This record gives sequence, C-alpha cells and structure tokens, in this order.
Amino acid sequence: MEVNRINTQSDNCDPGRPTHPGIFPTHEAGKSDHQTAERSVDFPVSVVLPAGGTGERTGLQTPKQFCSFLGRPLISYTIQAFERVSWIQSIVVVVAKENIDLMTDIIQRFQHRKVRVVPGGSTRHRSICNGVLALGEGKEERPVADRPKVVIIHDAVRPFVEEDFLYKIAMAAKDQGAAGAIRPLVSTVIATTSEGYLDHSLERAKYRASEMPQGFTYDVIYQAYQRCSESDFEFGTECLHLALQYCGTNAKLIQGPPTLWKVTYKRDLAAAESIIKETLSQSACVITGGSAQAVSLADALQKAVGGLDMELDVIPDLMGENSRYLLEEWNFIQISVNRSCLSEVEAIVMDLEAANRALLHPMVVIWVHLSGSDELSISGRMVEPKAIMDLASTAKLRNILLYGIQLCQSKDTERWERSALKVAEIMSALIQERSPALVGQLLQA
Amino acid sequence: MEVNRINTQSDNCDPGRPTHPGIFPTHEAGKSDHQTAERSVDFPVSVVLPAGGTGERTGLQTPKQFCSFLGRPLISYTIQAFERVSWIQSIVVVVAKENIDLMTDIIQRFQHRKVRVVPGGSTRHRSICNGVLALGEGKEERPVADRPKVVIIHDAVRPFVEEDFLYKIAMAAKDQGAAGAIRPLVSTVIATTSEGYLDHSLERAKYRASEMPQGFTYDVIYQAYQRCSESDFEFGTECLHLALQYCGTNAKLIQGPPTLWKVTYKRDLAAAESIIKETLSQSACVITGGSAQAVSLADALQKAVGGLDMELDVIPDLMGENSRYLLEEWNFIQISVNRSCLSEVEAIVMDLEAANRALLHPMVVIWVHLSGSDELSISGRMVEPKAIMDLASTAKLRNILLYGIQLCQSKDTERWERSALKVAEIMSALIQERSPALVGQLLQA
Repeated sequence: MEVNRINTQSDNCDPGRPTHPGIFPTHEAGKSDHQTAERSVDFPVSVVLPAGGTGERTGLQTPKQFCSFLGRPLISYTIQAFERVSWIQSIVVVVAKENIDLMTDIIQRFQHRKVRVVPGGSTRHRSICNGVLALGEGKEERPVADRPKVVIIHDAVRPFVEEDFLYKIAMAAKDQGAAGAIRPLVSTVIATTSEGYLDHSLERAKYRASEMPQGFTYDVIYQAYQRCSESDFEFGTECLHLALQYCGTNAKLIQGPPTLWKVTYKRDLAAAESIIKETLSQSACVITGGSAQAVSLADALQKAVGGLDMELDVIPDLMGENSRYLLEEWNFIQISVNRSCLSEVEAIVMDLEAANRALLHPMVVIWVHLSGSDELSISGRMVEPKAIMDLASTAKLRNILLYGIQLCQSKDTERWERSALKVAEIMSALIQERSPALVGQLLQA
Repeated sequence: MEVNRINTQSDNCDPGRPTHPGIFPTHEAGKSDHQTAERSVDFPVSVVLPAGGTGERTGLQTPKQFCSFLGRPLISYTIQAFERVSWIQSIVVVVAKENIDLMTDIIQRFQHRKVRVVPGGSTRHRSICNGVLALGEGKEERPVADRPKVVIIHDAVRPFVEEDFLYKIAMAAKDQGAAGAIRPLVSTVIATTSEGYLDHSLERAKYRASEMPQGFTYDVIYQAYQRCSESDFEFGTECLHLALQYCGTNAKLIQGPPTLWKVTYKRDLAAAESIIKETLSQSACVITGGSAQAVSLADALQKAVGGLDMELDVIPDLMGENSRYLLEEWNFIQISVNRSCLSEVEAIVMDLEAANRALLHPMVVIWVHLSGSDELSISGRMVEPKAIMDLASTAKLRNILLYGIQLCQSKDTERWERSALKVAEIMSALIQERSPALVGQLLQA
C-alpha cells in the first residue's frame, strides 16, 4: 500500500484555529470505541444552550444562531461540538416559542441525538432557568441520582468550544460548585458620567471578560434560580453572579482560548464561516488509480502543495484499509488518465453518499484529468464538458461539490512542473472557497 | 445613452458594513472639487497612528498591521481611510525602528501622500508621544499657528473608520479638549481574586469599552505627555485617562459604529478580508457593445442578479460620459458576441491600467462570450482557451483579474433564462471571491 504523507501545516501556535475542530466529530460519537479515555468524566454532565437571541446586533433578520454556514445553521455546529463529547449525556436547547418548529426541524435534518428542545422565557435568565428545570424533570419516578451532577451552560453562538476546555470547566464545577471561562479584556473599560463624559477608567489588569461556557453543580444552579429575585430574572445576565450571591459560591475562573468568542456582529459571521472553511480545507486525499502517470502527478502535487497550508495523502484507491478515508474529514482528488472517463469519480461520489459523509457540510471532490500530449486536439479540449456538468449537478443535490481540472502530460520538465503547480493552486482555491456556483466546471491547468 | 440601473441592495441598516467604505476613496482626494462641503472642518486636524504592535494575539509572525489583504497591508487601508478625508492635513505613522523601511516602502508603493513615518518608543504611550511631538516640529521657523488644533489618535488596526465619525470626534475634541469613541460591552466584566476566583461582577450598563479614534486639542495631549509620570509611560494605555489626570479634561464620549472594531485575533483577519471583498463586490458595469443580443443578455442578467446583493449598470461602451466608470469602483463585465474576439476586453484592461485603477486592490474583469447556437461545435467550445489564459496572465501582473464565461444563444426561453441565471451566479462568485488561482479560466454557463 502506498501512503505518502506530508504535513505542510506550521507547528506555530495558531490561537485562531481550534486544535480539535469543534465543527465536526473527529471521532463520530457512538462509533468511538477506540477513543482515548484518559480524560473521561465519571459523573453525569448535561448542557443548557440558551438560543433565544433576536440577532439585533448583526443587523440581520435571521437571529445569529439560525444563520447558515455552508448550508447548516450555526446552532447545529454548536450542538455538534457538545454531541461529539462522549461524557456529555444530554443537551437542552432553549428557544423562543416561535422558533421551536424550526429548531425541531434542524435537529431532524442534521440527525442530532442527545438534544431536547424547551421553550424559552422572556429574558436570558428565565430561559436558562427553564433549561435547568427541564434537566430535573423526566420520567415520573426519576431518581435524584439520574439528574446531572454538573450542568454546563453555553451560548448557541459560540460554536468553536473544544472538549479540552469543557473538561476543565466540568471538573472545576464539580470541585468548586461553579466555574466560568474568562478572557483578557481587549479594550479598556471606562465608567461614564450621566452626561456622557469620562468618569474614570478601570485598571485593565484587574478585570477580565466573563465568557461562556460556565459550569455548575446541579444543586448550585438550581438553588440559585430558586432563591434569586424577580429583578435578577428581569435584568441580570450573569449566572456566576447568582451562584455567588445566593449560594455563596465563588466560581473558579479559567482562562479560555480565543476560539470561545461569541458571534455577535455581522463581521463575526464572516469570521465563523472562514474558520469553518479553513478547518474543512486542511487535508486532501489524492487517488491515483495506481497508474505511473497519475502517481508522478501526485508526487508533483505533493511538492507543489508545500507552500500551501494543506496535508496531502496519496493512495491508489479507496479499497481495504483505505476506505477509512471515506469516514474521515478529507477532500478527494481523483486523478484519471483515461480519455473522458468519469466513472472513477462517479464511484467516489456514490461512496461518499453511501457513507452519508456530506450530511453536515459540503464535500469537495476534484476530478483531475491528465491527458497524454498526443491526445491534444487543436482546441486543447478532449473531455465533454456536459458530462462533468451533469454529474456535478446531480452530486450537488447530495451536498457534494464536484469540480474538474484538465492538464496535459509534458516531457518538458519545466512546463510539467508549472502545470502541476497550477493544479495545486486551483485545487487549493476550489477546496478553500467551496463555491457552489463553480461546480461542474472543467478548469485548465 | 442607455443606462439602466437596479439596486438590489436592501435598505436595512447593516452595521457590519461601512456606509461609506473606508477602504477606497469614493471621491479621490485631490480630484474632489465637487465634494460636498457641508461637514468641512475649519481648523487644522492631524492624525497619529501608532503601529508598533507585535501581533502576539493573532498568533502570526507578521504584525497585524502589516498583514496583507488582497495584496495590500492592513495599515495602508487605515491610512487611506484618513487620507480621503479632505480636512485632515497630515498623518504621522509611528512604527518600531526595525519596520521603518517596510513602512516607507508601503507608502511609496501605494502612493500615499500626507504621511510621515516616525520611530516608535518602547511602549504604546511613548510611541504616541513621539507622534504628537513630531506634529509640533517641522520647518525651523514654523509658527505656532501651523500646529494642528486637534490631534486624532487612532489604531493602525482599525481600518474601517468613517469620515462621519472622525468629524464628530474632531468637533467634540475642539469643544471639550478631548473626545473618545465608546462601544457597549459585549461581555460582562468581572473582578478576580488573586487565587483566580470570582470576586464580583460589574453592572454592565454603567460601563463602556473605550475604543479608538480619540481626539484631543494639541495643547491638551501635549501637556498630558509633558506632565505624566514614568509609570504612566511604562504601564498606561489610555490617553483619555492622561487628559483627565494631568489636564483635568473629562473627555466627551461618543458611541461609535461596530465598524470601529480592532483587528486583534486571527479570526479578525478573516472578518476584515470579508468586509473588504464585500465592499468591492457591490457593483458591476455591464458593457454590451450595443448589439441587440448582448443587450438582451444584459437585461436577463439584471433580472437574474435581483436575488444577489449587487448593483448592475448597463452601458454600451466606455466612451464619453461613460468613461467615468473607469474612475470609480466598478467591476467590469464585457459581453462579446464576436467569434473568438478578445479585443474588446483587452481594451478594457488597457483602459484600467491607464487609469491606474488597480493600484489599491485587484480589479475584476469578466469577459462573457455569447455564441450563436449555430456556431456550436460538438465539444461546445469555440474559443481558444489559451488566448484568454495568456491575456489573463499579463493582466494579473497589473493587478487585474480576468475571467471568462461562455454561453450559447438559445431560442428556448426557459433554457436561455437558466443560462443567464448561471452567468449571474458565476459572475457574482468570481467577483466576490476574487481568486487569483482561477484567472484566465473560461467557464461554462
């Protein structure tokens, strides 16, 4: 079996990209019997996701949590980030009454499990409280032991939360009663006079921004909501404050990574989309079919891709052990040397469909057609463009984005290397941009 | 003259997009004798732009202000945002000594005027102070009256500041001695104990995030720096605080738009790029050459583009009054009905080059080739792909991105409308994505 791997990603710490991308399961929950258990949690943990926001600050009609990224609403990414964590038992999503049908539809469409939908209240605290109470309900004779030991509260609009950090919050919450994520302040905080003048500025080093997730033992958060005032329910926003005021619990504060950030403004939608696209563009699998010409092109691609931020595996086919590529996060490049033969790429599209791999986000499949220089007609074209366009149109309905690249074999080394570099550049642009408008095009390298 | 205009942009307030995009001059400064003077400022205003940051928080090697967006460093966008404001006299950019050559090169390359480069100090306040002092220097016998009345201090990494808001800051600074931008807090601010536990949380409504720009009379900021302590120089960050403490000046606080945000994390780079691309993709100019077939396609494109967020003007050519399109922010779509004739689009590329239009960002030119159905060969191709690829390679060296789209005339109305819609989709994707890797491709609609 031929497996060459180069990893062109830098080892630099990159705080903008999740280390374990929360947007798709690295280990599909349920199938993850080989998952490392070193960080397992031996007490029940559930999650409350308030998702009642109206999206005022993005200036959009659709509330942020329902805005779509590559065809999937933001809240589905957030749910997935929790669902893939094996030690999280259940997730309660709290939405405004008018969005319950929408939310139920999202859960069905993207096959979320572990999730229950609960109607929200008129304020953030009332909504969270509804979620907490829902965790205590259930079967009539439900024993107290069935309740979660720890409740994690998070925002629907912070989709990039990572398992590592959830673990820290859950453990600290169990030990201390309450725990919350903090981040350094980006701006100086100032107090204003009632006339709109500067009163004083706070010393930045003494303060932190309180972020999500936060964790509480069930008892602490339940008691806090039992004891707090109507005014707290109406005007408060900070659960840590209620735990302190009504249960005397000083939350443990843990600095989180920048990926915890909250999608707030319209620019954040662009940032979120960019992170999602980047995460999906980290690796591609080149299938050569075993022919010497295709292997030679694959080698050239590996060299050419050195400057681009992408990992490239080269395999002869998707048989046997290589079928695992179909279950993981890869983009596929099929190199064909046969004249006008689309059957190989058609097979990949069918395999991906059978593996249900394009459920959560669009997959990219690129067909690279390598022609011998003798096959060249004067127009430089041999492939029927309509065939790949038709195949791409069908694949698009299944959320698979198919593109074609065409190049000619050349004995002129310099020309050949230039062509391979161009294939690599086009391939990389197609994978990163994932443009639905360009599917079925046959591009020239 | 035929000019049809439809504006498909929604009138919704969109707080994520600058209303007067700061990334390019809507009125080229210097040529703007028709500029409205209603908001002119009758006292001298200068700007200090501290740009000494090291970019720690993005996790990148390159400091954020020197990161490139569509081939141009962020700081050049910020400089441009000030340069296009007629009443701003001069801009002092303060950079670390090791970046002075880089900065000087950027100023030359992007033809910035009004700008002087000054070496920074070891802290933010020392750098700003150097900038303020540089404004007071100049010709030896420079009279006091030559000094700016008001100094605006801004961050190099907040490129989307708008003239409107600068006006407010300048006027308030002149009246009150000091003025600063504020924004509502996005997160609750909390005080921590030395052991990392919650001490208390601040009442969010009473506090604001202090942002940039800030404005001061020259005298206030000069005196503040004369009087402040070594400790202020070393550990302080907030100019408003110095004005209060050392000059007794309570700054007027003005709520700014969300576009004032500061590029801080890696995700902000993606957000900034997205805003820049979106701003450049708002309008396209369709050139028909006057033929009935091309006009009919242009009409169909206008209908099809209804669902996309783009303004489309249709003109027969770039002669006479229409040559103004070459001076403004437009993407160009040339419709050709001649068989294999690239000369029309070649002329546009040359016109754009002559007008120096691609200096500040890459321009998009799309050649749409409309063929009669009788011209169709079996392969569906008539145009020599190499010709457009060669033209595109040359144009790319001049920062002009040329793409091709090919479609066939059809008497079947439904098929024709489908083709026009596809041209509109491809066109829109190409303009928005501005991908250098795809130039010279001839796409099928």
